[in-house]
Amino acid sequence: MRTLIKDLKEQEITTISGWATNIRDTKYMIFVILKDRSGKIQVSIDKKEQPDLAAKLDGILSSSILSFTGKMVYSEYVKDGGKEFLPTQIEVLSKSEALPLDETADLDTRLNYRWIDLRSEKNNLMLKVQAAFVEGMRSFLIKEDFTEIHTPKLIATASESGSEVFEVKYFDRKAYLAQSPQFYKQMAIASGLERVFEIAPAFRAENSNTNRHATEFTSFDLEFAYIDSYEDVMNMEEDLLIAGLLNVKNLYGDKIKELFNSDVIIPKKPFPRIKLQDLYQELNKRYGYEIPEHDIGDMNAEAEKLTSRYAMEEYNSEFIFVTGYSKTKRAFYHMRKNDIPEGFDLIWRGTEITTGAQREHRYEILKKQAEEKGLGKDVEFYLEFFKYGCPPHGGFAIGIDRLTMLLLGITSIKEEMFIFRGPSRLTP
Amino acid sequence: MRTLIKDLKEQEITTISGWATNIRDTKYMIFVILKDRSGKIQVSIDKKEQPDLAAKLDGILSSSILSFTGKMVYSEYVKDGGKEFLPTQIEVLSKSEALPLDETADLDTRLNYRWIDLRSEKNNLMLKVQAAFVEGMRSFLIKEDFTEIHTPKLIATASESGSEVFEVKYFDRKAYLAQSPQFYKQMAIASGLERVFEIAPAFRAENSNTNRHATEFTSFDLEFAYIDSYEDVMNMEEDLLIAGLLNVKNLYGDKIKELFNSDVIIPKKPFPRIKLQDLYQELNKRYGYEIPEHDIGDMNAEAEKLTSRYAMEEYNSEFIFVTGYSKTKRAFYHMRKNDIPEGFDLIWRGTEITTGAQREHRYEILKKQAEEKGLGKDVEFYLEFFKYGCPPHGGFAIGIDRLTMLLLGITSIKEEMFIFRGPSRLTP
Repeated sequence: MRTLIKDLKEQEITTISGWATNIRDTKYMIFVILKDRSGKIQVSIDKKEQPDLAAKLDGILSSSILSFTGKMVYSEYVKDGGKEFLPTQIEVLSKSEALPLDETADLDTRLNYRWIDLRSEKNNLMLKVQAAFVEGMRSFLIKEDFTEIHTPKLIATASESGSEVFEVKYFDRKAYLAQSPQFYKQMAIASGLERVFEIAPAFRAENSNTNRHATEFTSFDLEFAYIDSYEDVMNMEEDLLIAGLLNVKNLYGDKIKELFNSDVIIPKKPFPRIKLQDLYQELNKRYGYEIPEHDIGDMNAEAEKLTSRYAMEEYNSEFIFVTGYSKTKRAFYHMRKNDIPEGFDLIWRGTEITTGAQREHRYEILKKQAEEKGLGKDVEFYLEFFKYGCPPHGGFAIGIDRLTMLLLGITSIKEEMFIFRGPSRLTP
Repeated sequence: MRTLIKDLKEQEITTISGWATNIRDTKYMIFVILKDRSGKIQVSIDKKEQPDLAAKLDGILSSSILSFTGKMVYSEYVKDGGKEFLPTQIEVLSKSEALPLDETADLDTRLNYRWIDLRSEKNNLMLKVQAAFVEGMRSFLIKEDFTEIHTPKLIATASESGSEVFEVKYFDRKAYLAQSPQFYKQMAIASGLERVFEIAPAFRAENSNTNRHATEFTSFDLEFAYIDSYEDVMNMEEDLLIAGLLNVKNLYGDKIKELFNSDVIIPKKPFPRIKLQDLYQELNKRYGYEIPEHDIGDMNAEAEKLTSRYAMEEYNSEFIFVTGYSKTKRAFYHMRKNDIPEGFDLIWRGTEITTGAQREHRYEILKKQAEEKGLGKDVEFYLEFFKYGCPPHGGFAIGIDRLTMLLLGITSIKEEMFIFRGPSRLTP
């Protein structure tokens, strides 16, 4: 039985196992820094008194996996609380070759050896923070009576936009990879579930290389019925994000400050909300920014940055909802009122993290809106969901990688994802 | 604001919304059975006293979505606790056409209209039971310090078995859909995470039509490090399944008994464990069963059924671990001891639900075992994970659809999955 380093008790004989992050062979002593998921400790071997143990470490490189049996003592020679481990036995569980990269390696090399790159304290923390963010949000939804669903990723038609969809050889025909669970989470609503969420991969065949896009990413999607308006959807997202951030702050707030120098700030409700037309005016008045002709009715990366600046200056808020986008810039399934989509984007720390909306649930209107966008055959199966009764509903999606990236101040999604996938990267 | 039917208080004026599962127009009265996620209630409209309300329901078919404002009263004319809703306002939220199928529809028609098929109380419960099973297991793992990961489904090589992999057009090259997260959850171990799990789609290009197989399904995978043997893996699975079943039983035990006539039985630890060779002897002695030549070293569907019978008769257990499979029948990455894989299958209610094992983490041995199976180039990238230190570890996978199917006594996975995908089914 192995004891975690954080649970070691003084003088108690036990076994610890982990990564040798550093092995220092001095004249009289060998010092090993052993690291497990709970912490680190210095293991000290006296070469003269313990020649057998010293021999076992002969030729062993750092990054090997070692197991030591012995006891922990407090020592005046050791920093970090003075804990030291004195072994009487050593087992080499896994020998490492010399590492093929060091801290100076460029991003591409690091991605090639992603499993080594991820071993750093910072990257391990990053993965745990993402899991805590997701778990905080998910627990909140389960308490709110949401049901988790698993929708198909293999689909029959190149749905939604018709472009940027991966094609799959499916026996003697073609299939496609779902860009989002949008149609199927709405199908769940038509199936009587009322409140659903899904956390699953989504696929985009975009041949672009940016710091924010990947061809495969994890989408946190939800949809819920019997809403009165898209205000309900925004309210739900506020609670959801607060729940996620609270879990992160409780578990890792201090560690994030230490390693990423980033604060986990719990926002106050309600988040500020502004109409796009009013926002354009504010950005112009305050920062002399004019939205380019082709982006009118929509946002762009620069406008998002300035919007965050505005939200901070005006409301002292990291989050801001923007509403009133043009129908030409939004999906056909957003409900409209006076020809304006009943939807929103949520901006956080200079970047859009969500598009949400009340959905159009009335078959005839939905069909018309699809046709307006030139979507015919591809969405026929989807329109069927609304013929036999479907309650009013709305929802949104969040890319969890982008979320973690913004939380920790990581500049590229390639560094944030467990394994990044892009047009020119399919390995490891 | 809407009130859930279960939360209605006598005489309190409020609004309820839901599915009209039945609309009965009698001489003096219209009766609507309204259903929401919390329950059902009869809504009664007096045609003579409330002609406006009656007119609103003219031509409205059941399956439409209706909203009623009024009050709940207890009535001697109503069964089921006597609750009745007396409306003063009606809103038709969504009109249903005549349903294209009824309860006598065959499976294929039901799958064509899956969203209607799923509306039944039984099917809604089925989806909630699956979510509760998963949530029970996941919460257990999070408490046990596991980290949730999201591994790529788009991969560069037709890995693992080399066959039955879907091919994807990936810009100017080919990619494949991951059959399992096996290699990547092991990569997470090599990345220092020690304990990981993932719940995600897996893809199998098997051109077969059975009641147990789908081309896409949701896999609950885990992997954890610093184990002493595959006994630790079996112990973990016992605790995991008990946690999942407990959550299901607490939330839905009675409902499952009522609708599926199935008992949620919480198993006792340890589950019985038997070696394949001993099992063959028992099956022969007890049931005169002889394993066919080509299945020696392995199991088959009939042997699994008899094994469950044996486990029940001998141990009064629904679960039984079988160990000691032949290396020719197991994946190359299972650790071996005396040439026997250190792995197991878990049988439940007549069906295999898991294959698990301690993994081979020593590069040279792993490489040899891969070569023995004729796996060369395809697993090269994977072998790299073990060159730079990787702790001993093990894990397993569970198909959550099969699990739910067995729990509820559903005979076909097509009826159990939210949306089934098979060689000849890609819709809806």
